[in-house]
Amino acid sequence: MYTVYGMADSGNCYKVKLALEQLKLPYRWVEVDSTQGGTRTPEFLARNPNGKVPTLQLEDGGYLPESNAILWFLAEGSALAPDTRLGRARALQWMFFEQYSHEPYIAVARYIRRYLPEDSPRRAELPNLQARGRKALGVMETHLSTELFFAGGRYSIADIALYAYTHCAADGGFDLEAYPAVHAWLARVKAQPGHVPLG
Amino acid sequence: MYTVYGMADSGNCYKVKLALEQLKLPYRWVEVDSTQGGTRTPEFLARNPNGKVPTLQLEDGGYLPESNAILWFLAEGSALAPDTRLGRARALQWMFFEQYSHEPYIAVARYIRRYLPEDSPRRAELPNLQARGRKALGVMETHLSTELFFAGGRYSIADIALYAYTHCAADGGFDLEAYPAVHAWLARVKAQPGHVPLG
Repeated sequence: MYTVYGMADSGNCYKVKLALEQLKLPYRWVEVDSTQGGTRTPEFLARNPNGKVPTLQLEDGGYLPESNAILWFLAEGSALAPDTRLGRARALQWMFFEQYSHEPYIAVARYIRRYLPEDSPRRAELPNLQARGRKALGVMETHLSTELFFAGGRYSIADIALYAYTHCAADGGFDLEAYPAVHAWLARVKAQPGHVPLG
Repeated sequence: MYTVYGMADSGNCYKVKLALEQLKLPYRWVEVDSTQGGTRTPEFLARNPNGKVPTLQLEDGGYLPESNAILWFLAEGSALAPDTRLGRARALQWMFFEQYSHEPYIAVARYIRRYLPEDSPRRAELPNLQARGRKALGVMETHLSTELFFAGGRYSIADIALYAYTHCAADGGFDLEAYPAVHAWLARVKAQPGHVPLG
């Protein structure tokens, strides 16, 4: 059985939970609070020297970090993975987009507004984070204006990766009503069999 | 034949060139200077709405952005891709690490020092970028103290992805001599058949 070291309110950890549930794979969840130093202990750093959740413990005892690499590992060969070479590349295109051009703005804006005190100096970062997050949402809106999903013409791990922090973007101060195609895609993702909420 | 829209001095674009050369795939290179607005023109944004190089034009005329998704597409089924499920997940683990925990610090420090004027206010970002970049180099050093390559026990696209900005990290003010296992790995990568330099 897999063990997930994760934080329930983290979108990156939610990706792994959602994939495990939709693939009907049994797992054990070990809650690690990264906001309270849980990813900085010697025990945790032995599992993932980069000190981040989620980290998946495999059935052979090894550890696999990086949410989108975990999604790939779990989904390979399943209905959640595209079944063509170009479809797989498109899924990875959007998964790398998520980690480089989306998460560092939309998830970080959410973190600052949700976890840091009202007078945190990091709140000064919000206007720049929100501008760059809106750019990412605009790129998604352009794609979804002609496509139902992100890769391979059907629901896949690319949708899971992007859903995780997009569906709760309001927490970071984003107005999703301004992106009607994104809004409709969120509803399509939520309607997939086996969908579970964040948390 | 593939067409690469890329900037010769960009590590992300160099990844694609190195893979194409080592896979002996013919390609055409179209130089796009992102520092002079070349990725912001309507023509370029029609190819990649996210406005970034590299973007690969496929043989069917479609476009594939994201350097690491391009690496995956080019290498699938070749000697540059791991041939086990766990090996593929490990390659992606390190490729997502590269885009999230390495490139935003090591490549951005290089960009600021190499492309912005001496009096740029962005130079104030360098101490933080260098601290986080050193953390990434430390994670690589830990891995390479017991492994020759990043995934699957042999040279792969994971090594190409991490070599691109690590081998020129001195441009960003990093001292690679402080990471002996990384230093030895750089020499192993450079010795691979078909290796070509950045630029």
